[in-house]
Amino acid sequence: MGILDNELRKLKEKILILGCLVEEGIRKSVKALIDREIDLAKQVISRDNLINGLEVEINEDCIKLIALRQPMAKDLRFITTAMKIITDLERMGDFAVNIAERAIELAQEPFLKPFVNIPKMAEIAESMVEDAINAFVKEDVDLCYDVIKRDDQVDELLKTNHNELIGLMIKNPDIISLALKRMFIAKYLERIADHATNIAEMVIYMVEGKMIRGSFVTEEIHKLCLEDFMSRQK
Amino acid sequence: MGILDNELRKLKEKILILGCLVEEGIRKSVKALIDREIDLAKQVISRDNLINGLEVEINEDCIKLIALRQPMAKDLRFITTAMKIITDLERMGDFAVNIAERAIELAQEPFLKPFVNIPKMAEIAESMVEDAINAFVKEDVDLCYDVIKRDDQVDELLKTNHNELIGLMIKNPDIISLALKRMFIAKYLERIADHATNIAEMVIYMVEGKMIRGSFVTEEIHKLCLEDFMSRQK
Repeated sequence: MGILDNELRKLKEKILILGCLVEEGIRKSVKALIDREIDLAKQVISRDNLINGLEVEINEDCIKLIALRQPMAKDLRFITTAMKIITDLERMGDFAVNIAERAIELAQEPFLKPFVNIPKMAEIAESMVEDAINAFVKEDVDLCYDVIKRDDQVDELLKTNHNELIGLMIKNPDIISLALKRMFIAKYLERIADHATNIAEMVIYMVEGKMIRGSFVTEEIHKLCLEDFMSRQK
Repeated sequence: MGILDNELRKLKEKILILGCLVEEGIRKSVKALIDREIDLAKQVISRDNLINGLEVEINEDCIKLIALRQPMAKDLRFITTAMKIITDLERMGDFAVNIAERAIELAQEPFLKPFVNIPKMAEIAESMVEDAINAFVKEDVDLCYDVIKRDDQVDELLKTNHNELIGLMIKNPDIISLALKRMFIAKYLERIADHATNIAEMVIYMVEGKMIRGSFVTEEIHKLCLEDFMSRQK
């Protein structure tokens, strides 16, 4: 095994650790919300620094790998994709912090009703994060499509949650502020699932060179954009 | 001027174009919302493909640049940062699409009240996007800090908007669904501003090698994470 292989293995290991930290953040923030555990929520917030730090560290590793080992084709694509994926993971960590912050607020207010949709959303979102990272490390395109499919379930649950809460708000305007916080938490989980979907899309692109969203810009459109841009600079 | 300089200049040009397309999407989606122009909103949605395509194209340019020119140190950092920045820009484009979608829905419903906070938020967010990209191209750290500072204004406006809408909802539960859509639009603008802030932070990191958020992970914590991770794999 060459030096680069060994370093790529270490890189994968670190990304798996980053993924674990992020999943842990999501899981604990939702547990803190449901069990009204303020201390656990605070732990999620304080551990976010670890996620941020590890992201910076992996980013540095990637730059060093490119500069020193000058990887070609497949390995280079793997490393540049890694640099994008860790950014997504770091942002997911921020959403776990947002959930933890709302959990602390809600723990100090009266209890509205048992959580139904949010734990389901959290479970799916966590599984998406885990599988998206595994798909990246193993370059498993089938698993990517599976992750992308699950995003629809999260969107469905978001809609159900949204409509239920609107119903409650109309019936009792006193709980509007409380219900909105639940709505935002669901929205954070949906954003986490979106980031997992982004990772899955990037992995498909890395492996197959095929982008799911968007089409390549043709020369012609490109020229139009450039002209449009230049005319506005005058 | 060397080949690499010339290619970096072209790269910057394309990123400026991508930035322009994204700014245009934000501006038009908010105009479509305020003026209830469904056609304009549809234009934003259909032009998003252009943004997605250009992002993929720039990403390919970056990989080719790294593979063929093997840039060192400063140039390599510039290119890898570019690859991250275009992802942020593409995501902002998605938020402009989200605003356009809500604009279409709202144009078909009764008018609630004139928009006050949302146009202000949009104006600041657009200026943040523009300046974040300029800061990147010119490697201007001062401008980055200025962008980051403006994010607080957007957050303030989001809070004001949120509280005003809650007030309206409590007074008249019939408009809850309508008010929520406005709330979400404000939230999309806040997310756009967050992405601009992310770009500004990455540029500071690129220029100064200093990360604003998070601290570097010490060896010790790193070992703890790894042990924790390994124990869970058993």
